[in-house]
Amino acid sequence: MISVEEARARILAGLVPTAAEIVALADAWQRVTAAPVAARLTQPPRDVSAMDGYALRASDGALGANLRVVGSAPAGHPWEGQIGPGEALRLFTGSIVPEGADSILIQEDATRDGDFLRVNEVVRAGRHIRRAGQDFSEGDTLIETGRRLTARDIGLIASANHPWVTVHRRPRIAILASGDEIALPGEPIPPGGIVSSNSHALAALVRACGGEPMVLPVAADDRAVLGAAVDAARGCDLLITTGGASVGEHDLIQEAFAARGLKLDFWQIAMRPGKPLMFGRLGELPMVGLPGNPVSSMVCGILFLMPAIQRLSGLNGDAPPTIAATLASPLPANDHRADHLRATLRAIPGGVEAVPFDRQDSAMLRLLTRADCLILRAPHATAAEPGDFVQIIRLDPLGL
Amino acid sequence: MISVEEARARILAGLVPTAAEIVALADAWQRVTAAPVAARLTQPPRDVSAMDGYALRASDGALGANLRVVGSAPAGHPWEGQIGPGEALRLFTGSIVPEGADSILIQEDATRDGDFLRVNEVVRAGRHIRRAGQDFSEGDTLIETGRRLTARDIGLIASANHPWVTVHRRPRIAILASGDEIALPGEPIPPGGIVSSNSHALAALVRACGGEPMVLPVAADDRAVLGAAVDAARGCDLLITTGGASVGEHDLIQEAFAARGLKLDFWQIAMRPGKPLMFGRLGELPMVGLPGNPVSSMVCGILFLMPAIQRLSGLNGDAPPTIAATLASPLPANDHRADHLRATLRAIPGGVEAVPFDRQDSAMLRLLTRADCLILRAPHATAAEPGDFVQIIRLDPLGL
Repeated sequence: MISVEEARARILAGLVPTAAEIVALADAWQRVTAAPVAARLTQPPRDVSAMDGYALRASDGALGANLRVVGSAPAGHPWEGQIGPGEALRLFTGSIVPEGADSILIQEDATRDGDFLRVNEVVRAGRHIRRAGQDFSEGDTLIETGRRLTARDIGLIASANHPWVTVHRRPRIAILASGDEIALPGEPIPPGGIVSSNSHALAALVRACGGEPMVLPVAADDRAVLGAAVDAARGCDLLITTGGASVGEHDLIQEAFAARGLKLDFWQIAMRPGKPLMFGRLGELPMVGLPGNPVSSMVCGILFLMPAIQRLSGLNGDAPPTIAATLASPLPANDHRADHLRATLRAIPGGVEAVPFDRQDSAMLRLLTRADCLILRAPHATAAEPGDFVQIIRLDPLGL
Repeated sequence: MISVEEARARILAGLVPTAAEIVALADAWQRVTAAPVAARLTQPPRDVSAMDGYALRASDGALGANLRVVGSAPAGHPWEGQIGPGEALRLFTGSIVPEGADSILIQEDATRDGDFLRVNEVVRAGRHIRRAGQDFSEGDTLIETGRRLTARDIGLIASANHPWVTVHRRPRIAILASGDEIALPGEPIPPGGIVSSNSHALAALVRACGGEPMVLPVAADDRAVLGAAVDAARGCDLLITTGGASVGEHDLIQEAFAARGLKLDFWQIAMRPGKPLMFGRLGELPMVGLPGNPVSSMVCGILFLMPAIQRLSGLNGDAPPTIAATLASPLPANDHRADHLRATLRAIPGGVEAVPFDRQDSAMLRLLTRADCLILRAPHATAAEPGDFVQIIRLDPLGL
C-alpha cells in the first residue's frame, strides 16, 4: 500500500497545465493567470488629494489665515493654473494637486465665504496628498503567473488598464460512470439497480475546482461500450471513471481500456474511506479510476481530483487546505490507514470544535452531506482526547 | 453614526428572496433551494451486501464448512431464488441479499473450488449487510429549503432520483459607476482621469455570491444620464452605485435619483475604511450606494453586499464568516469606528497567525490584493498584544 501523499504526488507528476487563452476581464473571475499582469499606467498618475478640501501652500496654512479661492477642480476636470501665495483651489478626493500647492486643508477645517476661506486648523505640509505611484507604477508586476483571480484582483487589473487577461484554459474533465445496475435520475431503474449519484457529484466537484465537466453516458458492463467511452473522452485533459463494481471493482474497465492502450498504475492506498485507485494514461489522456461507493468517491475526489484539476488549471495542486480544530469527543488510536472522519463543526472561543459522527459507514451519503468537515487521522495516530487539536478539511467553503 | 451591524440589518430588512425556478440537477451546484427535496425512493432499496463475497445462512457458516454455490448475482442482476441449507450465492458490493440468506462471507475468507466453497472464518449473523433504508427512506426530507447546494448535495439529490431542482432565481444586480473622471479599461483616459475598477470588482463579487451582475455603462456626472441608468436597472433585484465623487460623494446621484422617486436612507457608518453609505428604494428597486474609493468599496461590498445578495438568493444573509487568528504584532486601542485591517496569514501550530500590514491606506488597491484577510477591530477595542486572538474574515476562500 502507498500513502495518500505519495498517491497524490504520483498523480500530479503525470499532469501538465492547459495552454493559455485570452478572456475578457469581465469573465476572468476565478480563472488562473497564464502570464503576469504588469501595470500599464502609474496609479495615482499624479499627486492627488486624499480628501475633499482645498489645495494651498503649507506656509499659508496658519490658524485663522484668510485665502482666496481661485478655482475648483472636480476629479476628472484638472485645474491647469498655478497656486500662488495666499491662494487656494477647491478640490475633491482624487483631484490632481495643482502646481505651487503642497498641502490639503480638509473642508471640515475651512469656513468658506464667497471667494474666500478661513483656515480653522493648522495645515501640515504634504498632509492628505497621495503621491504619484503610491499604489503602483507603470511596468510593475501586479499579478504573478499561476494565481486564481479574486474579485480584488479583477479590480486591480482593471485599474492597471487591462481589458483582457491571459489565463489557462479550463481543464476539460470527462466523467464516466459504469455498471449495469446504474440509472440516471428520473429514468427507469433496472431490477436491483440504483440511481447514479457519482457522475453529477463529481461534475459539481469539477466545477468547484474551475474545470469544465463532460459527463459521458453511463456505460454498461461491456467491453465495447467502455472502449467507445475512451474514444469519446479524447481531447479532454483527464478521464475520471467511477464504479464498475458489478464484476469486481475496476476489472472490466481495465480489460476494456487495455485494448485502447492503457498504461496503468493500480494502487492500494492506505486510507479510509477508499479502495484501490487506478491511475494511468490512454496515450495522451491521463485517467483516474475512483471507487464506485459514493462516499469513497467524494473523499477521493477531494484528496486527489481537486489537486489534479488545480494542477491542470495552472496552480500547484496542493493538498486540500486544512485548519486546526478542537476535538469534541475521544477518538481511538488509528491503524495503518489514514482516516477521514465525517464531523460537524461548532464555534467555540478562539476557534472551532469538531464533533465526529458516531457512524462513519462509507455507504451513507446523507450523513456525508450533513458533515461540515473531514477530520484527518494520520496512519498510526495515537488515541485523541476531547480538547486535543486535530487537522480538518472544511467542505462547505470549497463548495464540496 | 450607526454601527456596521445595524446598517447590515437595515439593508437586509429591505430585501426579499427572488422567486423560484426549475433547473437541471447538472446546473444546480451552488444554487439555493427554494423547496425541500424529499427522497423518491429508499436507499438501499433492499438489504444489500456491503462486500464482495457469498450470501449464506449464518447457521451454515462454521469454520471449515463446505457449501454449494448455487448462482451468482452481480449488482444489477438480482438472483431470484431462495438460499437453502448448505447453499451459498456469489454476490458483490451492492448486490441484493437473496431470500433465505442472513449473512455474508467475504471472499477473502472463502476458498472456492468449482461449484463449492470452504468457510475459512466463522460467519456472524447479519455481518456485512446494509439494511434497506440505512441511508434514507422514501419520503424523507433530505435537503431543506434555503440551502446552497454543495457537490455532496448534488450527489444525494441524484441518489434520491431527482433530475430537477427547485431553486431561487439568481439575483440580478445592476452596477453603476459614475464620474466624469472614469474610463473603462483599454479605453481613452480623460485628462486627470482614472480607470474604473469598482464595476468589475463588484461584478466579480456578485458572481462570488451567486448573483448575476449587469454592469451599466459608466455614467457621466449628469442628471439625465444618471436618471436613465435607473430606468436601465428596472427589473433587477438591486442597484449598486459607486462613486460620484467628483462633486461631493453621492450628492449628484441623490439629486438625479430623486426625480425617479428615490426614498433614501443616508447613513454615516462607524467603520473604517468606509464612508457614508446610501440605502434606499426607487419604487420596487432597492439600491445601495457605495463609496467610490476602491478599497472602501470592496470592504463595504464584503460587509454589506455579500449578505444582501445572499438574502436575495434565499439564504439568511449572515455577516461574513469569521474565524479566530493569533495576532502577530501589537495593535493600538481602537477609536469609535469598527476597523477592518488588511493582513496576511501564516500557519502556526494549532491555527493561523494574522500579520497586519504597516500601511492601511484605503487608496492602495494593490495592497488589498496582497491581503489574506481582514482583521475585525470592534469600536473601542482595547490595545491588543501579539498572541491575542482576533476575529478575521478570510478573503480568498470567498473568491473575494
